[in-house]
Amino acid sequence: MTSPAKFKKDKEIIAEYDTQVKEIRAQLTEQMKCLDQQCELRVQLLQDLQDFFRKKAEIEMDYSRNLEKLAERFLAKTCSTKDQQFKKDQNVLSPVNCWNLLLNQVKRESRDHTTLSDIYLNNIIPRFVQVSEDSGRLFKKSKEVGQQLQDDLMKVLNELYSVMKTYHMYNADSISAQSKLKEAEKQEEKQIGKSVKQEDRQTPRSPDSTANVRIEEKHVRRSSVKKIEKMKEKRQAKYTENKLKAIKARNEYLLALEATNASVFKYYIHDLSDLIDCCDLGYHASLNRALRTFLSAELNLEQSKHEGLDAIENAVENLDATSDKQRLMEMYNNVFCPPMKFEFQPHMGDMASQLCAQQPVQSELLQRCQQLQSRLSTLKIENEEVKKTMEATLQTIQDIVTVEDFDVSDCFQYSNSMESVKSTVSETFMSKPSIAKRRANQQETEQFYFTVRECYGF
Amino acid sequence: MTSPAKFKKDKEIIAEYDTQVKEIRAQLTEQMKCLDQQCELRVQLLQDLQDFFRKKAEIEMDYSRNLEKLAERFLAKTCSTKDQQFKKDQNVLSPVNCWNLLLNQVKRESRDHTTLSDIYLNNIIPRFVQVSEDSGRLFKKSKEVGQQLQDDLMKVLNELYSVMKTYHMYNADSISAQSKLKEAEKQEEKQIGKSVKQEDRQTPRSPDSTANVRIEEKHVRRSSVKKIEKMKEKRQAKYTENKLKAIKARNEYLLALEATNASVFKYYIHDLSDLIDCCDLGYHASLNRALRTFLSAELNLEQSKHEGLDAIENAVENLDATSDKQRLMEMYNNVFCPPMKFEFQPHMGDMASQLCAQQPVQSELLQRCQQLQSRLSTLKIENEEVKKTMEATLQTIQDIVTVEDFDVSDCFQYSNSMESVKSTVSETFMSKPSIAKRRANQQETEQFYFTVRECYGF
Repeated sequence: MTSPAKFKKDKEIIAEYDTQVKEIRAQLTEQMKCLDQQCELRVQLLQDLQDFFRKKAEIEMDYSRNLEKLAERFLAKTCSTKDQQFKKDQNVLSPVNCWNLLLNQVKRESRDHTTLSDIYLNNIIPRFVQVSEDSGRLFKKSKEVGQQLQDDLMKVLNELYSVMKTYHMYNADSISAQSKLKEAEKQEEKQIGKSVKQEDRQTPRSPDSTANVRIEEKHVRRSSVKKIEKMKEKRQAKYTENKLKAIKARNEYLLALEATNASVFKYYIHDLSDLIDCCDLGYHASLNRALRTFLSAELNLEQSKHEGLDAIENAVENLDATSDKQRLMEMYNNVFCPPMKFEFQPHMGDMASQLCAQQPVQSELLQRCQQLQSRLSTLKIENEEVKKTMEATLQTIQDIVTVEDFDVSDCFQYSNSMESVKSTVSETFMSKPSIAKRRANQQETEQFYFTVRECYGF
Repeated sequence: MTSPAKFKKDKEIIAEYDTQVKEIRAQLTEQMKCLDQQCELRVQLLQDLQDFFRKKAEIEMDYSRNLEKLAERFLAKTCSTKDQQFKKDQNVLSPVNCWNLLLNQVKRESRDHTTLSDIYLNNIIPRFVQVSEDSGRLFKKSKEVGQQLQDDLMKVLNELYSVMKTYHMYNADSISAQSKLKEAEKQEEKQIGKSVKQEDRQTPRSPDSTANVRIEEKHVRRSSVKKIEKMKEKRQAKYTENKLKAIKARNEYLLALEATNASVFKYYIHDLSDLIDCCDLGYHASLNRALRTFLSAELNLEQSKHEGLDAIENAVENLDATSDKQRLMEMYNNVFCPPMKFEFQPHMGDMASQLCAQQPVQSELLQRCQQLQSRLSTLKIENEEVKKTMEATLQTIQDIVTVEDFDVSDCFQYSNSMESVKSTVSETFMSKPSIAKRRANQQETEQFYFTVRECYGF
């Protein structure tokens, strides 16, 4: 009746179920391990972030101190060596103004990097400490919850196992009862078969036909038939009972199967996701705020620095020789102001304070005047030429000294490799052959300019 | 004839002139001193600028090295402790991405500050060296030219002095000759007066009336008159000659006066200005370029840093729990993927794989179903309540962890005094009472959230 090729044996079914449950149990363990690992990584990351910002705070503080020292060194120098009025005087000159702003900028940057360091230590790191605490606490709680969920799931799986086994048992009982019933039926059949052989063949082979047999035989047969009937009835009852139990057990198994699948689905699809959500509760948002604090600090530093650079740029734009000359001359007014005109001093009450241009000096003066006029017009022509040469020479010098060679953007365009920065950068200003050539040209032109000036009475 | 109250004496005039020339000479000396001082200050300023940038280059290099070490420390850690695949896996998580970008940023800043240092050393400082050389050379030449101009001016002043003295001399000679002439005229007059007394009173008192006197007396008188006449003629001639000389001398003096005043004017108004221009030739322009190189370097650094911060900001914006959860589950797919559904395992070829819901189990199942439905509707109502509570609690936590408390602009707003930065800044994050309160609230809410979840089966 049982065909091994067709039906799985109980053992096989149990073994399969065991395997399936073992796999799930292994997964559950791995899930916990995975959460542990994520927790560990998160704790490590937050520790790294703290260490990173602690170390960076030190670096920023170091940088700030060095910048402050640098500024103080030159500010002290300016304050000590010269008296205050002199210093104040010099400040009106545009290059000195640039220099002062440079020093101010260094002071400003020093201060800003101290602030940055302070924000790292007193704001950003505490945030990471908090995130770390929160994460640890949430992971712990989530793991507890997760463990409970897993235990519940395992309970469901065990229940399914037990329900399945019950079903097997009751079904086996039912099958057994059925086979026993069938056996009884067979025996009854056999008994009836005997009666038919020993008696008339007319009699149909039914228990009711026993009325026709002989009394004695009849009695024996009747008692035997009754026995079998009784047994059959018993077995029938047993079978019916077992069959019902098996049906109920199967129903329980089927219901437990649905419930287990639903539980497994709920655990894998919802609970695990919720569990990770609980571990993450606020993590990303808090990390976001900590990093935004960092960004806010950096951007404020940048803005402050930029403001300083703007001030310097403005001062550089105002570098102006003409106004500096004006300021210098005003500053040393007594040194540069022209003296009183020399007045005619009449000798012993000499009344004539005008040039006497009458005879006999008239002709001589006229001649002299003509000579001077002729000399003057020659000089004027010469002068025009010299002026043109000088202007052209000056323009050449101006062109040389105002060439726009100050853009260093190239130096900040690195190759993707991030390597060999030095070699790229060092090729800048001085090593360019064009610079040397330009400088030679500048000095030559300058020399020429001076020569021309000197030759023609400045 | 000379009235001391009315005319200045020669000595006074000479003394006044001397004083005036001395004053000019003192001014000229001061002018040279002033140029020297400006040259010295300029050389000093350029030296200071070189020292400043040399020292700043060191500071930037130091800063760069420290940043590099910082980045390497954590990058090495990430590389060594875990295998590459694992690291790669983790990189898909948004917090790890932020962390990697932070380290990248430090590397980028390290590189940029090296570049900055390099530009200081190899571009900006050489520029200042050049400007210093140029300035020194130009000052030297300008001073030579200035000295020549001053010598020329002194020559003109000396000439004026000598011309003035000549005028004084010739005018004195002229006056003397005139007075001698006048004396002769007086004598002649006297002689004629004698003749008139000794002779007729009719005769007019003229030299021609001598014809009427006695021969002897006539002869004596005539010879005396002739003598006087001769002397007078001589004196007349002398006077005329001296007068002409005096006029010429005065003319020379007046011309020299004009020339001197013009020279002085030219020197004070044009030459001094030109001299300063020559000292400044290219100075402001070259300084401008050197400082613009500095600005270009700083602005490029700023831009590069800003790009890095933008990348970090973008990563911070992309901090997302949901997608991280998704990625984690994909990463550990074998751990998180739901197992196969549990299938009905028929026992010994049991053909019924469906719930048997006929008599005699029907009524029992129906009863059970009704019980479950009633329980389910109770749970649904409860669930709705719990869900609402949980959502509200979660929202509270979300509100706490997403509060926008990351703006640190205030820390960069210093008081004008630039002092007491520390005290202002340290009042930030942790010391605020609101933070402690908020944290307590957060943990309480979190606890409540977990309790609710646990009570109602997660």
